[in-house]
Amino acid sequence: IYIYIYIYIYIYIYMCRSVGIIGAPFSKGQSRGGVERGPDLIRAAGLVQRLQEQGCAVKDYGNLSLEDAAAEEPLGELKSVRAVGSANRRLSDAVQAAKKDGHTSVMLGGDHSLAIGSIHGHTTAVGPLSVVWVDAHADINTPLTTYTGNFHGQPMSFLLHELRSYIPPLPNFSWVKPCVSARDLVYIGLRDVDPAEHHILKLLGVKAFSMSEVDQLGVARVMEETCDYLCTRVKKPIHLSYDIDAIDPSVTPATGTPVTGGLTYREGVYISEYLCQTGLLSGVDLVEVNPLRGQTEEAVQSTVNTAVSVLVSCLGRVREGNPVPADYRLPEP
Amino acid sequence: IYIYIYIYIYIYIYMCRSVGIIGAPFSKGQSRGGVERGPDLIRAAGLVQRLQEQGCAVKDYGNLSLEDAAAEEPLGELKSVRAVGSANRRLSDAVQAAKKDGHTSVMLGGDHSLAIGSIHGHTTAVGPLSVVWVDAHADINTPLTTYTGNFHGQPMSFLLHELRSYIPPLPNFSWVKPCVSARDLVYIGLRDVDPAEHHILKLLGVKAFSMSEVDQLGVARVMEETCDYLCTRVKKPIHLSYDIDAIDPSVTPATGTPVTGGLTYREGVYISEYLCQTGLLSGVDLVEVNPLRGQTEEAVQSTVNTAVSVLVSCLGRVREGNPVPADYRLPEP
Amino acid sequence: IYIYIYIYIYIYIYMCRSVGIIGAPFSKGQSRGGVERGPDLIRAAGLVQRLQEQGCAVKDYGNLSLEDAAAEEPLGELKSVRAVGSANRRLSDAVQAAKKDGHTSVMLGGDHSLAIGSIHGHTTAVGPLSVVWVDAHADINTPLTTYTGNFHGQPMSFLLHELRSYIPPLPNFSWVKPCVSARDLVYIGLRDVDPAEHHILKLLGVKAFSMSEVDQLGVARVMEETCDYLCTRVKKPIHLSYDIDAIDPSVTPATGTPVTGGLTYREGVYISEYLCQTGLLSGVDLVEVNPLRGQTEEAVQSTVNTAVSVLVSCLGRVREGNPVPADYRLPEP
Ligand SMILES: [Mn+2]
Ligand SMILES: [Mn+2]
Ligand SMILES: [Mn+2]
Ligand SMILES: [Mn+2]
Ligand SMILES: [Mn+2]
Ligand SMILES: [Mn+2]
Repeated sequence: IYIYIYIYIYIYIYMCRSVGIIGAPFSKGQSRGGVERGPDLIRAAGLVQRLQEQGCAVKDYGNLSLEDAAAEEPLGELKSVRAVGSANRRLSDAVQAAKKDGHTSVMLGGDHSLAIGSIHGHTTAVGPLSVVWVDAHADINTPLTTYTGNFHGQPMSFLLHELRSYIPPLPNFSWVKPCVSARDLVYIGLRDVDPAEHHILKLLGVKAFSMSEVDQLGVARVMEETCDYLCTRVKKPIHLSYDIDAIDPSVTPATGTPVTGGLTYREGVYISEYLCQTGLLSGVDLVEVNPLRGQTEEAVQSTVNTAVSVLVSCLGRVREGNPVPADYRLPEP
Repeated sequence: IYIYIYIYIYIYIYMCRSVGIIGAPFSKGQSRGGVERGPDLIRAAGLVQRLQEQGCAVKDYGNLSLEDAAAEEPLGELKSVRAVGSANRRLSDAVQAAKKDGHTSVMLGGDHSLAIGSIHGHTTAVGPLSVVWVDAHADINTPLTTYTGNFHGQPMSFLLHELRSYIPPLPNFSWVKPCVSARDLVYIGLRDVDPAEHHILKLLGVKAFSMSEVDQLGVARVMEETCDYLCTRVKKPIHLSYDIDAIDPSVTPATGTPVTGGLTYREGVYISEYLCQTGLLSGVDLVEVNPLRGQTEEAVQSTVNTAVSVLVSCLGRVREGNPVPADYRLPEP
Repeated sequence: IYIYIYIYIYIYIYMCRSVGIIGAPFSKGQSRGGVERGPDLIRAAGLVQRLQEQGCAVKDYGNLSLEDAAAEEPLGELKSVRAVGSANRRLSDAVQAAKKDGHTSVMLGGDHSLAIGSIHGHTTAVGPLSVVWVDAHADINTPLTTYTGNFHGQPMSFLLHELRSYIPPLPNFSWVKPCVSARDLVYIGLRDVDPAEHHILKLLGVKAFSMSEVDQLGVARVMEETCDYLCTRVKKPIHLSYDIDAIDPSVTPATGTPVTGGLTYREGVYISEYLCQTGLLSGVDLVEVNPLRGQTEEAVQSTVNTAVSVLVSCLGRVREGNPVPADYRLPEP
């Protein structure tokens, strides 16, 4: 019971209260313009106010300056190598600063190549992490297996210790050191995985709940098993890297690579709620919101509002209702 | 086994057969016009015929005359106090009459403030009730905690014994006596609960399955636990108060206060089917269908048709197919 | 363990590899034009290429010539009796040929009356079958209980041994011999069942998972129970007869008799994935895609794409990712 109270206090005082928001308006990890507008759209939908209303202290670090004017020749198949490397380096520094200021870091993308910098910075600041990757895609191609050449399909390959020997040296990437163990990674929502990626997942024994497993077990048991798996050894801080395309395109159509058969809105929010309640959530990415990919204004708004719901649920919002201040008394006539 | 047969007969003879429909075209418990058209729309979608086809004897009591021409000054924050008080008094009488005629009462709203009269009348006629409240909202603000001043957010506060001392006297409300115990109330579908409401739910220990619990347990276990909870002591008749906004706005958009992340159509119908099969369902409210809040004719029709599906499932319709008459013989050539 | 390996090899070598596609552009089992275009639409959405990419050897037998120019007088209530009888005879022959060539047969409808010929041909070629019928409807009216007179609501009545004495002789149907036992049939997805059909299901003790049971148990347990039920005695080859109207009209609207409250896209695909993984799936029907019933091009495409997803999942596609060739090596720099 004391432990329970301790956890409760820990959640409400330390985790939900202090949030550092970093905008990363970057799109060169893939080929579709528009995703660089994600941070401003998510803010415009009321993220900061919603967080404040639910009792968070919010520091908005604003947007990083990440886009270079200069176009860049592909390096073999690989597109915008230098831009991706340097953007992620700046992002890593920003996330380190936010963590050193004591915040739960919230990185608003931008495309998913930004997870390289976000997770690198997070782990540099706080030590070894558990990573929960919520996505239709595994994003674990190496620079040698990708056939699109887009870095948003590769970030995990740069981060895993176990893949070190499969990654060639690349310009502006020398600062990236692998910092996550395959056994500290869990995927949720997969349904479009390349054969080479599938091979890597099996080779490394990565825990993955594809949509087949979500269908089979239900999202509640998926989250239980996720946390059991990640916490059997030591309870590391959790980094949640959330690609909005994990959720079904009927809910979040405004994204670059939608795949039918995704998470429902409710499953998407449940994942966040559950991770928040572990008290271990220390950093979040919300990526791949692309307003130019929505066919209507309503499609864009549904996508952006869902992104906000996911984030506020990461930071303390619960659907059964949030509590009154401790000194509240129900008014009598 | 004899008890089982008895219950079976009871269900088919007494519960499904005799239905009394009361239209309550009232909208002053909230501020959006249109919800007073609910009763006629639900009838126009074929409710009575559907019920008759599935073997119910239907008495339609028509619509109550509830709307006064006279506008009314707010009483502090509280809007249309006298109108709400007197409409509910008339409704209470009508429900009592329907119950005394031996029907399962079906009240078609109108806004959810009408639950005051419907539950009051029901319990006056048959004694203590169990109440299942299916809603995105808890509707349990007191007149002193509401910050909208709308009565459709307050009905449960007038009905609970435990909140008696928190309710101020109001004009046209002196006839309302608390008649439900907090332990006889179960909420399903909550996802937009004010902090003061959350405080009341915790203070009184009300059983509530928010959407988080529906996600965690699944609707089937929610219904099992609901009925286990309500029937541990004595099996009271059940009053189901169904706000159409419990269901997701993608299915039932034409309502005044839609909240994303609601019940699916199938979950919405499952709740009704399950409660019908207890044999204890004795009165139903179906409220908050508002055609003026639908953006298209299709949106309105989806909302209304879902309301009809919920109601016919309350009154005997099952998806596996309804039985032939007992004397049916399969024709041979 | 050896058995497991054997099954695994069996699945990948024998089941997923060789597919025989038969188009059956026939619509006279019901009254709405357009459903005869199903086979060409499903091909145009890339079925063959998708199957080849996932390692299947595909033989497309093309479309049967099934539609006669001559209109036909109804026989009592029964419409197009002779056309239905002769189309199914031709289809039975085609399915027998495909099975004798060693393929998993895939019949693209056309309306669901075609299941008569497809199942008849399948069982003629391989012996007794298990039948999994995924549909909003039971399609088990006899020619004497139907009140629409459409044969797409009757195919199962011609196929069941137990209904033999209830079927009158009909022109062009003399070749049809009952070939399925009621205990070898499982329904999934029912939600619009006539009372006479309900009577037949109870009379014969047919295993049926209506949408109520899907809601109660979840699709994963439904599939487990389906296969446990069908495989308790001998493991027969499975015939899957998949009516696209089993899936919810929000996903597959372009069909003749849509019924709200259907399977989700994910449940629809899970059923196929699961049956494929039994290693017993030997024949598939995909019927009732009707482009003229879609209100928009998008509605038609969603329906057709879902049909393709169902089929590729029947034939080896898995959402966690498909494997690389056995001799693949992850490239190193
Ligand atoms: Mn993705
Ligand atoms: Mn991604
Ligand atoms: Mn409500
Ligand atoms: Mn309500
Ligand atoms: Mn059907
Ligand atoms: Mn059918």
